[in-house]
Order: sequence, then C-alpha cells, then structure tokens
Amino acid sequence: MYKAIIFDVYGTIFDMSSLEKRLNQFDETQASSISQLWRKTQLQHMFLKQIMQRYITFDILTKDALRFTLDKHKIQYNREDINQLFDAFLDLDYFKEIPRVFSDLKAKNLEIGVLSNGNDSMLMPLVDNSKISDDIDTVMSVDEIKQYKPSPASYALILDYYHVNRSEVLYVSSNSWDVTGAANFGFDTVWVNRRKMQFDNNGQAPTMTVSNLNELVKWVEMNK
Amino acid sequence: MYKAIIFDVYGTIFDMSSLEKRLNQFDETQASSISQLWRKTQLQHMFLKQIMQRYITFDILTKDALRFTLDKHKIQYNREDINQLFDAFLDLDYFKEIPRVFSDLKAKNLEIGVLSNGNDSMLMPLVDNSKISDDIDTVMSVDEIKQYKPSPASYALILDYYHVNRSEVLYVSSNSWDVTGAANFGFDTVWVNRRKMQFDNNGQAPTMTVSNLNELVKWVEMNK
Repeated sequence: MYKAIIFDVYGTIFDMSSLEKRLNQFDETQASSISQLWRKTQLQHMFLKQIMQRYITFDILTKDALRFTLDKHKIQYNREDINQLFDAFLDLDYFKEIPRVFSDLKAKNLEIGVLSNGNDSMLMPLVDNSKISDDIDTVMSVDEIKQYKPSPASYALILDYYHVNRSEVLYVSSNSWDVTGAANFGFDTVWVNRRKMQFDNNGQAPTMTVSNLNELVKWVEMNK
Repeated sequence: MYKAIIFDVYGTIFDMSSLEKRLNQFDETQASSISQLWRKTQLQHMFLKQIMQRYITFDILTKDALRFTLDKHKIQYNREDINQLFDAFLDLDYFKEIPRVFSDLKAKNLEIGVLSNGNDSMLMPLVDNSKISDDIDTVMSVDEIKQYKPSPASYALILDYYHVNRSEVLYVSSNSWDVTGAANFGFDTVWVNRRKMQFDNNGQAPTMTVSNLNELVKWVEMNK
C-alpha cells in the first residue's frame, strides 16, 4: 500500500525537550518557561510569515523568536548567547526507538524521508550529527519552495521527490497542525502522541494515532 | 494626511474580557481559563485554515474552537450550551472611550471603518446592538474574499472600499499580529497596548503605540 513513510523532524524524530537541557546551563530557574515560549513563538511567527507571504529561513526566524522570548523573560543576552542557544537546535537527541524503527521500515522496502520547515543549515548538521542519517533516503526542506508547512505546496514537495501518488505516502508527525495539513493535502497520517494530549482537531483527524514509533511499525505491518 | 482610520473589531473596539463574564455563569471556577484557551484556539485555527487554504466562516470556526476548549477542560455540553456561549461574541462591551473617540475623529472629517475576520452574521448583531454603529461608515469583513487577516488580500479590501492610497490609511489594532500584517501591507499602524504587553515583533513594528484610543485622537491631531 505505502511506498514512502515521511517523517516530520522537530518533535517527531528529535526530542524538543533537549532544548531545555541546554537552557538549564543558561538560566536554571526559567529554562522550562523559556524553552516553551521559544518553541511557541517560533511556530507562531512561522504561521504568520506564511500568511503574510514573507518567508524567511527558519534559522533566522528561530533566532528572532529566541530574542523575543528572552526579552519577555527580562533576560540580558549578547550575540554569542543567541548563537550558543540556537546551536541546541543542531544537536537535539533523537527518540530512542528511532534506529530500530527506521531499520524495520527499510527491511520492508519502504522509502524513508523527512520533510521539515528547517532550512539546510539547520537540518544537515542535525541529521549528519546523528547516527540515524544512513537510514534516511531523502531530507526535504520547505526552503526549496519558500513556503512553510502546513501549506499545500509544502506537502507537494514529497510528490516531486518520490514520484508517487498521494495514497502511497504515509505522513508521520507529532504536531497536530502538521498532521492536519498533511491530511488536508490527501495523505494518510499518523499522529505520534507521546504525552497523551488531546488532538487539536482543525478539520482533519489522523488516520492512526500511536504513542510511540514502535507502534507505527506494527500498524504499517498490518496495513501493508 | 490620513483619509480613513480603520479599526480592528475584537479586542480593539470591543472588550474580549466580556467573554469571561458570560462564561462565569456557565462554569465559575474555570471561566478565565476557558475564555483564554477559546480565544487562543480560535486564532490558531484561523491562521492554520488560512495557510491550508481551507477558509470557513468565523462563526463556525469559533464554535469549533469552543468545543475543543470545553473538551480540553473535560466539561460536558450540549448544542444549546455552545449556542448560548457563542452568543457572547454578539454582545461584547465596547471600550468606554469609543463613542467620544469616534465622534472626535468624525469631526475631523475622517472616515471610520472596521475590518474584521468575523463574518456578517457575527459582525452585524455586534455592531447594530451597540450605540456606536452610527459613527462607523463601513463594516468590512474578510468573508467577502474568504481570506483571513493577516493575509495581504484582506487588507487590500480597505483600498477597494475607500479608493484611497495606502499612505492615506491609518490602521488601528490591539492585536500585534494584525498590526504587523497591516504594516506589512503598507499602512501606517497604531498598536493599542492596553495591558502594557511587549509587542510581538515579527517583521514590522507599529508606527505608534498608545495605551488607549484617547491617545490615538491626540496623535492623529498632531500628525494631520
């Protein structure tokens, strides 16, 4: 049934809580609050830039979001602080089941790709730094078309790369807005709900919900 | 200099804290939390619908956001509850300075319009129910073009209605994303910052920041 399994990157393959570790060295008392507002602001700015048709690369956007977040926490910082904290995005931990999951999927002759809002200067160090890069066939960035997810054009990139039909793609994300966007485009979707959250239903529900990626492998086996 | 002053509706002319009053009768202990998540979800869904090119009218979107919010609070509800709570959006209080501000601006031969993401079935009862409707020349809804603010197309509606240049419009909003969108389109902007918040700078800062609309009148006098 499926020919390609496409994964989101931030929060789906790589654990965003790694950010908090790095922030702990910077400001122990507010690390959790800073990391949450940073990620929230990053997404909010991204959505609004897309609506305003004012694309900028994700690295610049992420640094801007960090400055806003630190200002809001009334924390002083210099250029070096911003660069060091930003570097946490290049060195996130992947979820521990990933290597096994990718090799199981490869063994079933499935293509494995990632589609991210990150640009290459963020994605390449992250993926290359990690041991899982060998199992990823294609790293796709929306930077190629300058339109962020969840725009239809961003998911269309997958069809350009793989020359498959929409029904042959399974799209996997931990972000409900990303699941909704991919489903809206016509893909079957898997929502990775690691924290027992309520799905933010905004038009399209996921085809399948799993609590980790091992469950994804089982589900793909049953639906081949 | 300016020929038309265009106001955002929700939060700028009408006080969103009126929502909390209505919710107090429904669930006293969680009214504040519900009203905040409701508004947050409403905006988030709106932004994402715009990006996914899946416009629906704001009344339906607002009810969907309410259902999500009540589910998340583990509150039982029926259709009648949703309709009654939704009706709070049709009966918001305007900020107390508005009648005076509008009549002062009219006295300077300025056109006064509103541009809202609300559709007519939400806007008309709200504006007609209030005493300020006589001073508003034009009620513009993005429903006419099925594209939400802050898309460039939404602000272009103002030029269609008024046949003015961008430099002749002053756009007034309490929502920083709306100020940014209007500035991005090329209007001078006023950010109404009633609660001493930090402006969420996402590309364009406001031309002027005021803490209430009386200050706007003074500023327009100086800049005529």
